[in-house]
Amino acid sequence: MIHGGDIYSNNYKGEITDFSSNINPLGPPERLRGEMEKAYLELTAYPDIHYRELKLNIAAYLSCSSSEVVLGSGALEIISNFSLMFKRTIVFTPCFSEYIKRPAVYGREVKKFPLDSDFKINIKYIEEDLKQGDLLILGNPNNPTGLRIPEDELKGIYDIVKEKNAFLLLDEAFFEFCPEDYDSVELFKGRDNICIIRAATKFFALPGIRLGYGVTSSTFAEKYAEVESPWSINSYANAAGKCIFRESDYIEQTKQYINSEREYLQKELSKIEWIKVYKSNANFILIKLLKHDENIIFDEFIKAGIMIRKASNFEGLDRSFIRIAVKGRESNNNLIRLFKEFE
Amino acid sequence: MIHGGDIYSNNYKGEITDFSSNINPLGPPERLRGEMEKAYLELTAYPDIHYRELKLNIAAYLSCSSSEVVLGSGALEIISNFSLMFKRTIVFTPCFSEYIKRPAVYGREVKKFPLDSDFKINIKYIEEDLKQGDLLILGNPNNPTGLRIPEDELKGIYDIVKEKNAFLLLDEAFFEFCPEDYDSVELFKGRDNICIIRAATKFFALPGIRLGYGVTSSTFAEKYAEVESPWSINSYANAAGKCIFRESDYIEQTKQYINSEREYLQKELSKIEWIKVYKSNANFILIKLLKHDENIIFDEFIKAGIMIRKASNFEGLDRSFIRIAVKGRESNNNLIRLFKEFE
Repeated sequence: MIHGGDIYSNNYKGEITDFSSNINPLGPPERLRGEMEKAYLELTAYPDIHYRELKLNIAAYLSCSSSEVVLGSGALEIISNFSLMFKRTIVFTPCFSEYIKRPAVYGREVKKFPLDSDFKINIKYIEEDLKQGDLLILGNPNNPTGLRIPEDELKGIYDIVKEKNAFLLLDEAFFEFCPEDYDSVELFKGRDNICIIRAATKFFALPGIRLGYGVTSSTFAEKYAEVESPWSINSYANAAGKCIFRESDYIEQTKQYINSEREYLQKELSKIEWIKVYKSNANFILIKLLKHDENIIFDEFIKAGIMIRKASNFEGLDRSFIRIAVKGRESNNNLIRLFKEFE
Repeated sequence: MIHGGDIYSNNYKGEITDFSSNINPLGPPERLRGEMEKAYLELTAYPDIHYRELKLNIAAYLSCSSSEVVLGSGALEIISNFSLMFKRTIVFTPCFSEYIKRPAVYGREVKKFPLDSDFKINIKYIEEDLKQGDLLILGNPNNPTGLRIPEDELKGIYDIVKEKNAFLLLDEAFFEFCPEDYDSVELFKGRDNICIIRAATKFFALPGIRLGYGVTSSTFAEKYAEVESPWSINSYANAAGKCIFRESDYIEQTKQYINSEREYLQKELSKIEWIKVYKSNANFILIKLLKHDENIIFDEFIKAGIMIRKASNFEGLDRSFIRIAVKGRESNNNLIRLFKEFE
């Protein structure tokens, strides 16, 4: 299993700024630390097998009913459970590699369509190929492209999915980083044949806690419960979920910070002639290297203590692509300087 | 999904001593709390996807190679992954309900044989029915019976499994609570067609942390890696695993304490005429109610603040069975008194 952000496997000995991992650079909400210390006392009991309080907190955050909430050990476990529940999965590449790997683990068929040359979804593929009982997984925004599906396009896709009685799994793990346009949870409230996944991982800077959640119809949530592994969310993740979603100041501040830093990074990097910077709606940016390959840039940048994400192991991309995260201003400036100095 | 130990679903409002959950009453090793506070700082990074340091620590605890270690979010995730990897699972009932549920989730066949009237394994069933490619799951000691498989019998079962090229999954989640007779990890060192599962859950009193581990051949561990979900062990569980297995004083003290309390409980409960107490090698005891059914005892005992485990949802048992955990002396005495007073 090769993943891009394996900071533990490189041989560089100095301090590394990890631009390969798309985590909120502001870190988790301050109040979390105290809550985690209290959660220690909960370790000697199994978490509530129904995670009732956790689901209530997520429901309050998303303005939905707690019976519509599904959970997973990271968004990944939800994707994995869905992969199992449908006979065939349809994806557009490049995308998060686990959309392809998890169905394969369960012996399910995976049908892959390429995104357009500007990484847009060609809806014709969906119209022509999607069948009853299929699972369509779309990243919104998509990883590694950073592109969010425009509202009208998304509504159109959902209508096709619904008409064919297939199922749309929208992976919105990066939702809160996006410019505020529309909210899919609101848009598809009360609808069936759809689940919208989000997570504590990226926005709340908690990849280590493993907490993903999704919203779907109550009916489908009951089917999901038949498949999910009991107690897969540990006590700390359970406790974190009772804290982080109430931190509205932190949430607002992060949104503004990331939006402003993304714009800054995109503007500055766009001035560099040997790279092409794709417009992103997320907290990461896909870059095409016009002169070098990913290995050269990785090796050169790591010498300066900066780790970028090689992107060639995303199906549909080659070694001329890299992905970088939006980090704090000082780190972003270091990255911009490196790009400017290198050629 | 109905599990026995769902303390969150009962309506009793007072303080409850939970005899339904088989957790070490001494709690986790003292040093863990400080380690967990430090682990907070690791939450903003993904855990090592290969969990290299964690595996080294487990390997040191089990005297095996780290390439032979497999991991899961609790023993349950390992059982789940194995269920997926084999076309048919064979179990003896009564057993932990997830041996039956997880294969079913993956659409795998489950063949169930009953344990003998004294809850022993009838090896003839294995000789006659086990086929190439089957997974045989055995609890050792078995839950809810508390019985450990005698060494010679286990060797005999393994020989059949090996000869037929099937696979033996020994669930030893309660291993450290057992009287010291033999160690399966030592017994089957270097052998293939077998995996021995253990966990932090019961012995280290950490059901909330979700950390299970197993030992198998390096070759099989590689196959397991193809199936397992990445990052399923969170940062706290990862950090706990680097601490608890080194706590040899705690380990020794717990073993002695539980052995002594189990003998005490068994001796005292055996004096009560309206119950039959099964001999256990674990930290829990199966009891047959000779006069009442589980609901009456559950309801009466909960009024006194004691929650027992109804056992009728274990396949092969009926409402005349309950299971109790071995807890601290004071709690054990309260339980004994309740049994003596009730009739």
